[in-house]
Amino acid sequence: MQTHAYPTPYAARLAARSGVLDAPTANVAPGYVQANLAILPRDLAYDFLLFCQRNPKPCPLVGVSEVGDPMLPLLGHDLDIRTDVPRYRVWEKGKLVAEVTDVSQYWRDDLVTFAIGCSFSFEEAMLAAGLPVRHIEQCCNVPMYRTSIATTPAGRFSGPLVMSMRPLSPKDAIRAAQVTARFPSVHGGPMHIGDPSLVGIKDIGKPDYGDPVEIRPGEIPVFWACGVTPQSVIAASMPDFCITHAPGYMLLTDIPNSDLAIC
Amino acid sequence: MQTHAYPTPYAARLAARSGVLDAPTANVAPGYVQANLAILPRDLAYDFLLFCQRNPKPCPLVGVSEVGDPMLPLLGHDLDIRTDVPRYRVWEKGKLVAEVTDVSQYWRDDLVTFAIGCSFSFEEAMLAAGLPVRHIEQCCNVPMYRTSIATTPAGRFSGPLVMSMRPLSPKDAIRAAQVTARFPSVHGGPMHIGDPSLVGIKDIGKPDYGDPVEIRPGEIPVFWACGVTPQSVIAASMPDFCITHAPGYMLLTDIPNSDLAIC
Repeated sequence: MQTHAYPTPYAARLAARSGVLDAPTANVAPGYVQANLAILPRDLAYDFLLFCQRNPKPCPLVGVSEVGDPMLPLLGHDLDIRTDVPRYRVWEKGKLVAEVTDVSQYWRDDLVTFAIGCSFSFEEAMLAAGLPVRHIEQCCNVPMYRTSIATTPAGRFSGPLVMSMRPLSPKDAIRAAQVTARFPSVHGGPMHIGDPSLVGIKDIGKPDYGDPVEIRPGEIPVFWACGVTPQSVIAASMPDFCITHAPGYMLLTDIPNSDLAIC
Repeated sequence: MQTHAYPTPYAARLAARSGVLDAPTANVAPGYVQANLAILPRDLAYDFLLFCQRNPKPCPLVGVSEVGDPMLPLLGHDLDIRTDVPRYRVWEKGKLVAEVTDVSQYWRDDLVTFAIGCSFSFEEAMLAAGLPVRHIEQCCNVPMYRTSIATTPAGRFSGPLVMSMRPLSPKDAIRAAQVTARFPSVHGGPMHIGDPSLVGIKDIGKPDYGDPVEIRPGEIPVFWACGVTPQSVIAASMPDFCITHAPGYMLLTDIPNSDLAIC
């Protein structure tokens, strides 16, 4: 499902708040950082913050809230995390208990919001550099794979690294490695290139998440650390309570993608 | 005081452990990351970790220990933080109570070690690029200044950003901005260039820390976020208990500087 673009991320957040925007957010606010969402109780927040510090490629934090405060002024004007994401998932003991467009009724004074960078930002940089992004061409979700590479554990959080894959010609793969490396806060450069079996992927045609995409003759698969990693790691730790975004329905921030380029 | 180079960072750590190495660590283990040290009780660790996340330019974390564990396997082989730094400072309620070469007697089960990247790494990259580093030429400490730029507060930690300064010709300043940007985990690219008064520095000849250096005709001052920022921020919050390294006597890690280059 494709939605039209809003003039600003704030306009899109207000549309989400009022219930008008209830759709995946690709291209909803072009040029601005979108983020994966993990809302956890304070007693898990230190372990999760440390997990993100130790695994900056899959878990690049773009913002962390104050304890219990639903507002995120560092990420956007008037941003209320209880209402401004188009769709949420509410989890109890690792089980999905609700998928809703507003989590005000679930809010607690001990919750901490973690916003984690998303590949939409570096895909925009790839497209701007004239590089093809196959799943965008094919209008499907990016293929994602659980790999044999372990994340660095922190407290109650551990698990395998998930990688997303984009097929490219060798020449484009080199350029994509350069272009995306400039954006460490949205996963940065690739983690693997070529033979999928070297990172424990048995069948490139059967992703663990998302959709398979065509790999054309002469192309090689290029793998990036994926924002699904923190979600799968949180799910595996089965916290008593947790809120995430629904896949594809991201948090829209006021941060321009171009601000993330470090060089 | 200048010391000779050891063949490996581990050899240098063993020398510090035995008391043979009790000197500033510039050039003690060339090619490897050296780190600023902050050891804090667990009840302050979440706020400090969040402070570092919100202020990655002055506080680029290269490693965080487990609670109470003096070993830091992510940073070095057999690295015991109680003995392996050449000299420590022990603080109580913001006051310096001891300067020692071993903190075993002060160790507690609730302590968390934070290792923060240091400009030695990017200065090595500057020298390798043929750029001059004035305070190295002049055999003195780098000049550092408290600025009018505020850090982003987190819990009990807040305060002004401290910047270090290196004078360069305009051409070299441009190249230095490019070369150092590749190393975000050791402060990254400059934060300011040119007129010191724009960041609240009244007299460039009178640094707040370190030594003044010569600015030659045609040169401009170039300012980087400085690892003294976290130390000054911790000092201002006056925690009941805290251990840091003595200035210049850094933690020597096994991480090659070249590993930090993100592109």
